Amino acid sequence: MSTSFAYHPGNGYEAWLQYRRADRGTNDERFTEYHHIVASVQDEVMRSAVDELSDGLKGITGRSVSITEDAVSTPCILLGIFGASKAIDQAIDADTARAVKAEGFAIQTDSLTRNIAVGAATSAGLLYGVFHLLRIMGAGGAADRLSLVENPVNPLRMINQWDNMDGSVERGYAGKSIFFENNRITGNLERIKDYARLLASCGINAIAINNVNVHRVESRLLTEFLPEVAKLAEIFRSYAIKLFLSINYASPMELGGLPTADPVASDVREWWRLAASNVYAAVPDFGGFLVKADSEHRPGPFTYGRDHADGANMLAEALKPYGGIVIWRCFVYNCKQDWRDRTTDRARAAYDHFRQLDGSFMDNVILQIKNGPIDFQVREPVSPLLGAMPRTNQMIEFQITQEYTGQQRHVCYLVPQWKEILDFDTHLQGMGTPVKRIVDGTVHGNPYSGFAAVSNIGDDTNWTGHPLAQANLYGYGRLAWNPELSSEEIAGEWITLTYGNREPLYGIIQDMLMSSWEIYESYTAPLGVGFMVNPDHHYGPNVEGYEYSPWGTYHYADCHGIGVDRTTATGTGYTSQYAGPNREMYESPATCPDELLLFFHHVPYTHPLHSGKTVIQHIYDTHFEGAERAERLLAAWERVKEHMDEEAFRQVADRLAEQAEHAKEWRDRINTYFFRKSGIADERGRTIY
Amino acid sequence: MSTSFAYHPGNGYEAWLQYRRADRGTNDERFTEYHHIVASVQDEVMRSAVDELSDGLKGITGRSVSITEDAVSTPCILLGIFGASKAIDQAIDADTARAVKAEGFAIQTDSLTRNIAVGAATSAGLLYGVFHLLRIMGAGGAADRLSLVENPVNPLRMINQWDNMDGSVERGYAGKSIFFENNRITGNLERIKDYARLLASCGINAIAINNVNVHRVESRLLTEFLPEVAKLAEIFRSYAIKLFLSINYASPMELGGLPTADPVASDVREWWRLAASNVYAAVPDFGGFLVKADSEHRPGPFTYGRDHADGANMLAEALKPYGGIVIWRCFVYNCKQDWRDRTTDRARAAYDHFRQLDGSFMDNVILQIKNGPIDFQVREPVSPLLGAMPRTNQMIEFQITQEYTGQQRHVCYLVPQWKEILDFDTHLQGMGTPVKRIVDGTVHGNPYSGFAAVSNIGDDTNWTGHPLAQANLYGYGRLAWNPELSSEEIAGEWITLTYGNREPLYGIIQDMLMSSWEIYESYTAPLGVGFMVNPDHHYGPNVEGYEYSPWGTYHYADCHGIGVDRTTATGTGYTSQYAGPNREMYESPATCPDELLLFFHHVPYTHPLHSGKTVIQHIYDTHFEGAERAERLLAAWERVKEHMDEEAFRQVADRLAEQAEHAKEWRDRINTYFFRKSGIADERGRTIY
Repeated sequence: MSTSFAYHPGNGYEAWLQYRRADRGTNDERFTEYHHIVASVQDEVMRSAVDELSDGLKGITGRSVSITEDAVSTPCILLGIFGASKAIDQAIDADTARAVKAEGFAIQTDSLTRNIAVGAATSAGLLYGVFHLLRIMGAGGAADRLSLVENPVNPLRMINQWDNMDGSVERGYAGKSIFFENNRITGNLERIKDYARLLASCGINAIAINNVNVHRVESRLLTEFLPEVAKLAEIFRSYAIKLFLSINYASPMELGGLPTADPVASDVREWWRLAASNVYAAVPDFGGFLVKADSEHRPGPFTYGRDHADGANMLAEALKPYGGIVIWRCFVYNCKQDWRDRTTDRARAAYDHFRQLDGSFMDNVILQIKNGPIDFQVREPVSPLLGAMPRTNQMIEFQITQEYTGQQRHVCYLVPQWKEILDFDTHLQGMGTPVKRIVDGTVHGNPYSGFAAVSNIGDDTNWTGHPLAQANLYGYGRLAWNPELSSEEIAGEWITLTYGNREPLYGIIQDMLMSSWEIYESYTAPLGVGFMVNPDHHYGPNVEGYEYSPWGTYHYADCHGIGVDRTTATGTGYTSQYAGPNREMYESPATCPDELLLFFHHVPYTHPLHSGKTVIQHIYDTHFEGAERAERLLAAWERVKEHMDEEAFRQVADRLAEQAEHAKEWRDRINTYFFRKSGIADERGRTIY
Repeated sequence: MSTSFAYHPGNGYEAWLQYRRADRGTNDERFTEYHHIVASVQDEVMRSAVDELSDGLKGITGRSVSITEDAVSTPCILLGIFGASKAIDQAIDADTARAVKAEGFAIQTDSLTRNIAVGAATSAGLLYGVFHLLRIMGAGGAADRLSLVENPVNPLRMINQWDNMDGSVERGYAGKSIFFENNRITGNLERIKDYARLLASCGINAIAINNVNVHRVESRLLTEFLPEVAKLAEIFRSYAIKLFLSINYASPMELGGLPTADPVASDVREWWRLAASNVYAAVPDFGGFLVKADSEHRPGPFTYGRDHADGANMLAEALKPYGGIVIWRCFVYNCKQDWRDRTTDRARAAYDHFRQLDGSFMDNVILQIKNGPIDFQVREPVSPLLGAMPRTNQMIEFQITQEYTGQQRHVCYLVPQWKEILDFDTHLQGMGTPVKRIVDGTVHGNPYSGFAAVSNIGDDTNWTGHPLAQANLYGYGRLAWNPELSSEEIAGEWITLTYGNREPLYGIIQDMLMSSWEIYESYTAPLGVGFMVNPDHHYGPNVEGYEYSPWGTYHYADCHGIGVDRTTATGTGYTSQYAGPNREMYESPATCPDELLLFFHHVPYTHPLHSGKTVIQHIYDTHFEGAERAERLLAAWERVKEHMDEEAFRQVADRLAEQAEHAKEWRDRINTYFFRKSGIADERGRTIY
């Protein structure tokens, strides 16, 4: 009994929270009776929950909303904490309440009174419950027989901002930072609050507000900027989001004037203890430190002959008394590799550096591991380090910002990629050990675990530059909450909350999103080869862009073939980092999945794929088809024009036009490169330059 | 009867004018009797001449120098203008005096009195005469029987600074601008005067002080910065150097607020007339405008459907009443070319754009034409536009700054390259029509003609970063004065004036300089192919760096062969821009010189060169040999260590070490690229990756 409706997102600022807007002409008659909230506000998070619900109902019903501590009429919406609210304890039975964990919630509609009860064990749970209810209502769902319990699957659901204090955003494609400008924290707290709302609405509970590359000025977030950091923490706290800071490992030297940052030096340890104490004095519920150390020219324990455990534990010790944690990134590799050296393999680096340290990290350290062994390419195998350290907390790192996937100028809905990674069976404890069970902590029983991801937002009015990139931020939060949600479900939720659910709009956008990753992959880097991009900025095709660089990203294309031999038999031995069945699968070209063939093997252009095509013909075909499909995305979007406002339409249409054009550039450069290199003509005689 | 001596250039600031330094311990006994100057100073240029001579003599003789209006004792050095100085008219006979042109001079030693007379028709000539005399003395030459007349071969001997007002120098490799910083003219007038001295000492008589890419702030050099420009003009005036400004074609809009910059619009013409009038009020001997229009995104007459003659003449008209000239650059091409389009050929562009306009330019317009058709590559054919417009003033543009020739981190003495270009026979008026005779104006009888070149200096203490790059600045000036000087002569002069003339130092540095261009070419871009460099900054190897770019610089390498077919029979038709014998020579691979083969022809890797080697083996051999030779340059330099001061030695040694290392990177990247592409092994089995 769902209704058909459209939202008009306009400039995109409201994103998927448009139910707040009262003037969008989609008031749903079925909800008009819900304009009465019963709640006794205990803290700022519950205050946010009540405010969101009140604003949301106003938007959805078009009526003013009353809030009382006790029920005065029915139907109403009851909010409360189990054991603290009699009304909730009466409305939701004890068995259901027991099923609700710390951040979870239950929602039940009383069939007689039609009252909707939202109960939780914490005010954070209540906030999530309110957002969930609003999501149901905002998506036109039925409210009359709700009966559900939700608990987040992952304890940590984190966002990493790569924002610099000069206002730039590393790998940011949606304007400047909303947090910083001119080496100060911005005064635009309203915008930051709206970001907190967006994040909380899809379940995010942690944020590191500054770039992992921490330079001199950002180091001072720990010291002179603390009062302003505290203001940001207050905003995020009211949306149940813990604030973290990325720190500079050399801070004891750069800020403290010490001659060393050696993690075993007592004055260094003391410096960090004092730093932690100061931070917690300003921000009592501070989350902890995010650390990029000994990576890409950042300082770290290696300088002093110490290992990563020494480095991380020193910080963990400083944070421990306050319940803080250290999130230590595993993105460590030799970024000054000699391209002539074929034995060093960047893909091996994280595993080689960290695996041996299993068991040496304190229990408030979490290793943050990128989803793949290289760097957020459109296609990589799963990092073999995930799950390979049973006695160490781990979390997975995704990249929402589309660094290598079109930079928010091309559409690339990344949830399907993330799903594939999460569902990958590591076989680490036999068949049925998928990444998602490692990441949520259940396989090894880790106290801390979860998701981190690099944000894709900036100060563009619509947050993400490309409006369809909002689906990635939304989808990331939803997937962190529940990795069992399907890509289609998440896309469906987002489309409905953003544009409404009318056909053909809904189906068209659903198809566009669901096909977008495959399309982007098809006209860019073939068969898992990766890094065929322009150096530095990483936008656009450049097959040899990284071939002779020090970054460890090569494809070794010659006139005979292409790919990296990472086998254990004849190559770099990277395959040996996987558990048995995966190792065997990747070791042989006969069993290696086509889409990762060139990641694991160097093969002739005439090598036949499982698809029956040769490698070279696959390259030609996918690139011709990909560019055609990119063009069809634009044509598809034209068909939704009449179902939304002009600005919302135009924002996407302009980018799709650029994508269609740029996909041709990809097609022609990649095909020309391989034709010139291999000398093998396209079977179908299409134009190659 | 020359003596053997060494200079110790120290930090390099004095460059080749070290005779001024009294403490270098090379006082030459033979000159100690010359400490008396006889001159009647008439203007600031003559003042400079007398000052330079006086300082120079002090340095050379170690004695104080007296200056009087009349001769009081012998021997003395007499300076004077013919017809204005009786002493000079007596010392130098009328026939000799008649042979001296406007900027020339005569020097004669009286065998009885041993007086040296320097006579000229202008004070500028006198200044050049003084510098010439000092050069002879500073190089340890004999002064006792001088009898010579020198006249500059080229009327215009110009330097183009590519300095921006923010203090950066486009394609500058020796620090920041000495002219500008923080969008102001610098106050360091002493340094600018020393630059004027360096330039005048080798014969330069014109300078454009700002980059040809003129942005908003530089446009205002014409207006609000005029008082400071006048101060710079005053400095250069005292060294007989005319000051020019590069102008922004859109100035009437950007500065004047007009709605157009259309050259036929009367308000635009009026704006420029007024601008010229203001400039000449501030700088009465202002040289004129240097213009980059309709090139690489700079504005120009094309915007208004006008041609370059319309554009240039409008400016020429404004300058004409004051004797000013317009120097209009011919570096015009499509910089947004589609790489897929093989018919458009950037090499053709200057000729195609300008040739047809012959006869339409006013007589105070000069077209400034780059030496080659592309852009200052290590090897290019001569631009076919040079000499192809008999009724139009032309000057040649060289690049002293080593943009594509090692960026002053590699040594590359460019005089041999320039000589080869100047000596190239265009055959435009039959055999014996070399470029140098076109450029000096004699072939077509042009009122204006000459040399321009992009400066290689910055605020590094030694001016040019690489001390050996000073030889290029010096050599450029000397060659502009007299293109008949040999590369060896010029190198010899420079070495002697900079380091002295002792062996083995002299011979070693001479060999290093004379071989350096060939060495650089050998390990970089083979056989005239060009542009195998990293995009944007142009330093270091990148074979495909420009292959798919919009800049029109391609080599079309595939698994079979490489090169650009620019023939008339089957290619772009570029060869047809040359006169008969050259056209025929370039048209066939059989007659095309090896070093330009890939510029004119696309050939298989197995194509045999005149040397007997195949193209691919030539690539391998030259790259292996080039890297070895680069290493030997460093070894050679070690052998001069004991003959100079430590700082002078170290400045060069550090750069040679970098060159030796970087040459290996060139070798390996180029060889690996072509081995991977061709699949053809090195005959000698050396290591290719």
